Amino acid sequence: MTSESIARLSEGIRDVPDFPKPGVLFKDITPVLAHPELWDIAISALIETAGDTRIDKVVGIDARGFIFGAAVADRLKAGFIPIRKKGKLPYHTFEKAYALEYGEEIIQVHQDAIAPGENVLLVDDLLATGGTAAAAAELIDRLGGKLIGFSFLIELTFLNGRANLPSAAPVNAILTY
Amino acid sequence: MTSESIARLSEGIRDVPDFPKPGVLFKDITPVLAHPELWDIAISALIETAGDTRIDKVVGIDARGFIFGAAVADRLKAGFIPIRKKGKLPYHTFEKAYALEYGEEIIQVHQDAIAPGENVLLVDDLLATGGTAAAAAELIDRLGGKLIGFSFLIELTFLNGRANLPSAAPVNAILTY
Repeated sequence: MTSESIARLSEGIRDVPDFPKPGVLFKDITPVLAHPELWDIAISALIETAGDTRIDKVVGIDARGFIFGAAVADRLKAGFIPIRKKGKLPYHTFEKAYALEYGEEIIQVHQDAIAPGENVLLVDDLLATGGTAAAAAELIDRLGGKLIGFSFLIELTFLNGRANLPSAAPVNAILTY
Repeated sequence: MTSESIARLSEGIRDVPDFPKPGVLFKDITPVLAHPELWDIAISALIETAGDTRIDKVVGIDARGFIFGAAVADRLKAGFIPIRKKGKLPYHTFEKAYALEYGEEIIQVHQDAIAPGENVLLVDDLLATGGTAAAAAELIDRLGGKLIGFSFLIELTFLNGRANLPSAAPVNAILTY
């Protein structure tokens, strides 16, 4: 991916002030989704982070992670595995709770989603504090999957979310703020 | 798409009884997502429904519609437009309320998501009562988009959701129950 392409991609991210609450500058990725060229740069860049390793399963996190993860899985001819908030997946699940600023969140994965030894790429739009991604990594580990890497479109580096992710898998972000 | 392929796809749908509540037989599409061959049949079939018409924007509905819609958009080199439950989209939105069994739901779309005259394909995993899809069609119409068709992976025909959808656009479902 050329630096020129990445610069164009970055211009497609829209800053929305005071969303979801006052004082937060939200990185809106929907202009990238709506623009086929920018979308292609984003998906290609997310795939590049996996290198030459065969990926068996791409994990996407509810809900924006579904958008990027599904396209990455389709291009890689890998399976797509949704990780969802508690109560959304219909079959037998494993779950993991993690702390939010106030309270906690629980995410779930189907117990048959990943076979032991399969190579897994975790794709999400945003690395913020890393709480969700770290919990997802634990679920992948519990299923016996081998986490090849984390691929984020955007990393908010001032939140230092990388520090919360397991060190065994590389953390890649296309755009950093 | 051959009838043999569709039969294989159908075998990938898992029936989960009593989800999300007692008496409901839930059609679980996650085995299709996890299986690259079945996934390819599903995405190819959803695209076939659009025929030869150029699609500018694919609309997907939060959250499972994101999975199918994003892959369809990627293959068609179309833009992807998320329609989401109220409060999730950060920029200026239009919204539409629709009735649920108890109470109502509100969905939103970004005001700049579709340009007047653009050809739009609406993709979702499931046509049940049709309330969400009908509301989404109204939002597409409000933006000036031309709805080319509805493409559903599954239609629950006993709910007669087609009757709630606008007659101007064809309604296609790959699997019917």
